[in-house]
Amino acid sequence: MLKQHPVKRNSKTKIRSFLDERFLLQSLSAERLYYEFAKNQPIIDYHNHLSVAAIAANRRADNIAELWLLNDPYKHRAMRLAGVPELFITGKTPPKEKFLHWAKIVPKTIGNPLFHWSCLELKYCFGIEDVLNAANAESIWKKCNEILRSSRRGERDWLRFWNVESLCTSDDPLNSVAAHRLASNSDLRVLPSFRGDTLLLTNYRNAWSDYVYSVRSLDDYCTRAVDRIDAFDKAGCRLADHSLDSGFRFISVKKSNVKKIFAQFQQGLATPENADILRSFLFQFFCSEYAKRHWTLQLHIGAVRQTSDRLRHLTGLTGGYACMGNSVDVASLCRLFNTLEKEKQLPNIILYTLNPSDNALFATFCGSFTEDGTAGKIRFGPAWWYNDFDNAIRRHLIDLAGYSLLNNFPGMTTDSRSVLSFSRHDYFRRILCDLLGEQIERGEIPNDDELLAPLLESLCVGNARAILAPKT
Amino acid sequence: MLKQHPVKRNSKTKIRSFLDERFLLQSLSAERLYYEFAKNQPIIDYHNHLSVAAIAANRRADNIAELWLLNDPYKHRAMRLAGVPELFITGKTPPKEKFLHWAKIVPKTIGNPLFHWSCLELKYCFGIEDVLNAANAESIWKKCNEILRSSRRGERDWLRFWNVESLCTSDDPLNSVAAHRLASNSDLRVLPSFRGDTLLLTNYRNAWSDYVYSVRSLDDYCTRAVDRIDAFDKAGCRLADHSLDSGFRFISVKKSNVKKIFAQFQQGLATPENADILRSFLFQFFCSEYAKRHWTLQLHIGAVRQTSDRLRHLTGLTGGYACMGNSVDVASLCRLFNTLEKEKQLPNIILYTLNPSDNALFATFCGSFTEDGTAGKIRFGPAWWYNDFDNAIRRHLIDLAGYSLLNNFPGMTTDSRSVLSFSRHDYFRRILCDLLGEQIERGEIPNDDELLAPLLESLCVGNARAILAPKT
Amino acid sequence: MLKQHPVKRNSKTKIRSFLDERFLLQSLSAERLYYEFAKNQPIIDYHNHLSVAAIAANRRADNIAELWLLNDPYKHRAMRLAGVPELFITGKTPPKEKFLHWAKIVPKTIGNPLFHWSCLELKYCFGIEDVLNAANAESIWKKCNEILRSSRRGERDWLRFWNVESLCTSDDPLNSVAAHRLASNSDLRVLPSFRGDTLLLTNYRNAWSDYVYSVRSLDDYCTRAVDRIDAFDKAGCRLADHSLDSGFRFISVKKSNVKKIFAQFQQGLATPENADILRSFLFQFFCSEYAKRHWTLQLHIGAVRQTSDRLRHLTGLTGGYACMGNSVDVASLCRLFNTLEKEKQLPNIILYTLNPSDNALFATFCGSFTEDGTAGKIRFGPAWWYNDFDNAIRRHLIDLAGYSLLNNFPGMTTDSRSVLSFSRHDYFRRILCDLLGEQIERGEIPNDDELLAPLLESLCVGNARAILAPKT
Repeated sequence: MLKQHPVKRNSKTKIRSFLDERFLLQSLSAERLYYEFAKNQPIIDYHNHLSVAAIAANRRADNIAELWLLNDPYKHRAMRLAGVPELFITGKTPPKEKFLHWAKIVPKTIGNPLFHWSCLELKYCFGIEDVLNAANAESIWKKCNEILRSSRRGERDWLRFWNVESLCTSDDPLNSVAAHRLASNSDLRVLPSFRGDTLLLTNYRNAWSDYVYSVRSLDDYCTRAVDRIDAFDKAGCRLADHSLDSGFRFISVKKSNVKKIFAQFQQGLATPENADILRSFLFQFFCSEYAKRHWTLQLHIGAVRQTSDRLRHLTGLTGGYACMGNSVDVASLCRLFNTLEKEKQLPNIILYTLNPSDNALFATFCGSFTEDGTAGKIRFGPAWWYNDFDNAIRRHLIDLAGYSLLNNFPGMTTDSRSVLSFSRHDYFRRILCDLLGEQIERGEIPNDDELLAPLLESLCVGNARAILAPKT
Repeated sequence: MLKQHPVKRNSKTKIRSFLDERFLLQSLSAERLYYEFAKNQPIIDYHNHLSVAAIAANRRADNIAELWLLNDPYKHRAMRLAGVPELFITGKTPPKEKFLHWAKIVPKTIGNPLFHWSCLELKYCFGIEDVLNAANAESIWKKCNEILRSSRRGERDWLRFWNVESLCTSDDPLNSVAAHRLASNSDLRVLPSFRGDTLLLTNYRNAWSDYVYSVRSLDDYCTRAVDRIDAFDKAGCRLADHSLDSGFRFISVKKSNVKKIFAQFQQGLATPENADILRSFLFQFFCSEYAKRHWTLQLHIGAVRQTSDRLRHLTGLTGGYACMGNSVDVASLCRLFNTLEKEKQLPNIILYTLNPSDNALFATFCGSFTEDGTAGKIRFGPAWWYNDFDNAIRRHLIDLAGYSLLNNFPGMTTDSRSVLSFSRHDYFRRILCDLLGEQIERGEIPNDDELLAPLLESLCVGNARAILAPKT
Repeated sequence: MLKQHPVKRNSKTKIRSFLDERFLLQSLSAERLYYEFAKNQPIIDYHNHLSVAAIAANRRADNIAELWLLNDPYKHRAMRLAGVPELFITGKTPPKEKFLHWAKIVPKTIGNPLFHWSCLELKYCFGIEDVLNAANAESIWKKCNEILRSSRRGERDWLRFWNVESLCTSDDPLNSVAAHRLASNSDLRVLPSFRGDTLLLTNYRNAWSDYVYSVRSLDDYCTRAVDRIDAFDKAGCRLADHSLDSGFRFISVKKSNVKKIFAQFQQGLATPENADILRSFLFQFFCSEYAKRHWTLQLHIGAVRQTSDRLRHLTGLTGGYACMGNSVDVASLCRLFNTLEKEKQLPNIILYTLNPSDNALFATFCGSFTEDGTAGKIRFGPAWWYNDFDNAIRRHLIDLAGYSLLNNFPGMTTDSRSVLSFSRHDYFRRILCDLLGEQIERGEIPNDDELLAPLLESLCVGNARAILAPKT
């Protein structure tokens, strides 16, 4: 029907090799920024889910599946989307078979962060240049495991491989923080971060919520929590972290009213409205404690973690089936921050949103609560979770810069359970340099190293280093 | 004030001809993908508003207005935006005068899908290379009508022209589905799809809702509906379709409670809350029936169809004046899908959203409900309605790939009342190939036909073919 | 760890000079459109916050800070984000010291509109090509002030410098509109616009709301308001303006019911629900008055102006700390417009949204309420406030064109308090020409001046001129 058009088949001169040294760097200026000012910066990863025990023990993986697949909800999610039966994802199948199933899916992840991440990790960590697929899965399985065996590389070795300077694990308040000093040495600082969610009387029972039912009063409850905050503080903790899932509301109330509600709650009699009041009170209280200690509070906003009961029963609370929530309730957010600010209880904040249609809103929000003498009192954090891919990171950085200050960006995090994921810092730095390099070449920003070198240093490592600096 | 800058007027060597063979294909790799793997694929159009009777009768249009303008709410909307009086849009003016008014508007639609669509359709179907405008309207009117007359091309001929393999019309449950077999032949399969909206007791009276008031009970009502579902199933129907307009809420309830509400509803006494409960029950019931028959359910989410009463009275319920609703209520969506999943009543789903700020949310949602052995249990459908233009399609594909799996894309649809609109498949394929071609040239995906040819085949035709395959 | 890549340091031939004549014009076609059809168009700025008294008096600034910094909430906001103490922003520090603090921040605004705006303004108005920073602040302070002194350029002279044809100040209903005729002459028309917000009984007391408590009845209140509308109309006013801040709801009611609520309100006894009803009534009433006079009503939708009480107390109601609200309540918007349309009270409208995730929604909404014979009954206005930067303007124009008609765009505004900000029209025109030029070079629109010249004339100046034309 439509006329055929003769395409010159040999005109491929402009095609770049997949994943070469210039990967994601579309201009010479981008290349230059990356290789001169970004690539060799050390890594500070202030939010991840590594095991401090594994780092302290320099634990070695038996095979690539253990290191790369078995605990990765991102990959599990993609496998489910492609119809892989749960047996081969989180079921009782041997690791190798899971790896072979994952290999079949990799080519289908084009356009998803998993494609670039997987290819980069296999290339950087194992020298593998081919895209993993059904045909080469067996040989790549062997090659990776051979390298793991012969290199005897453990968790700590991987961190040295990536040039990691500091990292913060995410720790439940009840976790011991003794191992963090053991895991640290002169090259590497491993700090705990205080994941306070379980303190907020969530709907799911856990070790901490069980405790709620045994204390005598709200005061006792708060005292016990502050003990844990102190323990973390002594272990060098500089960051807390709360998830304000989709539906979060902040209701400002007096403590006296809340005492009664706490008692109701212990008896299982609190209404949903009262539970929200109680959580609002507790959240404000914990914020004030974080502020006292000059911690920075990470707010991860907008996830919907209750989706499929089927998947929750099969895979637990963090099984990769969460979705994005609706836009944050801005009025609640303003009420919360204004209340804390009035009471001088507002800690430094890093905001994350799962729903990227809120990017502009969050970036703008940073300018609504500020503090004399504090650059970045409220910072918009890196593109979170599902948003951690080239296009989404690019849009996120453009909005962060356009609606607030790029210079306040707190730095990239892996948010990962695997030591192979530190390539995400490299991935991020390439995108950042590409964005700035493009603007240089277009005459939109000056081609001026005195201006750009300090900016890149701040965004790659300087701002994160300042956030983790011991309070003085 | 500002310094004048001497522009070299003759440096136009890089300017491409408007709408040439490389239209929307910005790289050689994009051209190659399109011409080798996409252009010549047949078309499967699983959602449109063609008349099955017209196809069966191979109906011929008297003039280009009849074929192209009189029933096209998109064009009517643009004409209204430009201030054209309704008399010349849907009023009692002769077709030719309407065409002349439309011609005046075409140059004002630059940047709107109507501009590209109109130019492509006139070029592909009538060989017209000029942009339709006031000056050439008279001659283009003549030329098109001359071609229509001399070619004697009817609806079925147009479908052959476009290389259509299968299509699904959108049919009210009360419609006869006898004509679909008549319209089908060895080259073309014409299937009904079950547009269930009128079953859900909408606010507007129609043939079906009138029936509600005559049945004895909810059970009778459901039985009658299942009869129609069976009739469609026998006629080869593989798809149902429901609009969940802006404001949709899902409330899970037991059937026993709903029987009373149904009786109240029949007497016009149901509260809005109870009407929502009744609709939730019925929707769940119909989903279970679709699931039983292995149908795929299309959910068109987020339109606001009640805007201007003036335009509704003038032009009916689908007159092109709808707007986008707010973001979908994610909690309702999760509750609906989780309830269906628990009861093993969840059919395969194709999600559409009218509001593109929900694109990331919908793409992510696909990973929240999955099924062992089913690739794409929940699929994010093509960019819907107002979003069907180059930039919006591009952003939609980027988000679909980034937040779920590009490979699960169910395929393009025209969603149109006109047989000329099949050029939208070509338009879509060019954008898709451009996106992948750009990534090849940048080294972001491998330049590997073994990887990309099957992907393009799936997205252009394979996935849609699988959706329409008879259950086995 | 990763292999070093040798970057060719001298391959800078493609790098454009920062802010040269081709700034933001990435193609030759873009350059040509800009220099031939856009650059030399006069400016009509129908929404800004200039002082009519200052224009009438041709007021001269003592120094660059007075002209550029002291009254600019955008710059104040960026300074706060960077941690500058309030003392040096809006405190009792001398202007020069504030300028020196601002200078330090400018390099940190890369990616924010302030960077381009500041560089463009210093270049266009003072011939300064360097990026203002801590090192050159002292000399740039001197140079600018020297030029201000020697040129004796006052507000009116600046407007001539920018080739401003007409402008509309934003005036409280109680403001005198006598000065506008004094400020106008044969070259420049200065009109008031009617900022009706204080008429709507906002939460903050002001001169007008005080008046509410003294009138005898709702009728008296309305009569008094209409007197002011008449006074503005006689002074040539063609535009009203209302902010529908985040949380806006429209509730349609009868006047008789509202009279009681008005009395309750006067006694401070109105419930929040009733206050919303009263405001809905008043808003509808004022709309009908605007419609009678053929005014165009600007609706600025979605700001959250109550964020930090601390900053409100320090800097007043417009201190640059507002954030974006959630998506507009579409149902309210439809109800409002439908009610007005039914009663033949719908004025011409220009819509603005602060939250860019509503861009597609607003652009689409323009097609939901139209009028025979009126092109652009509802127009989607320019990218508002925080959205006034290259990437956001580009996305806004793409969505405006894609979801409605680019041709209906009402024109750019500065929305500024400073006469230096008129460079934003130049900034906008470059982006617009770049967008169209790119499409020409790609073969996506015809390279046809007969098509594009009138379009550019309409968007740069023609549509705004028509909006300001006296009613006939």
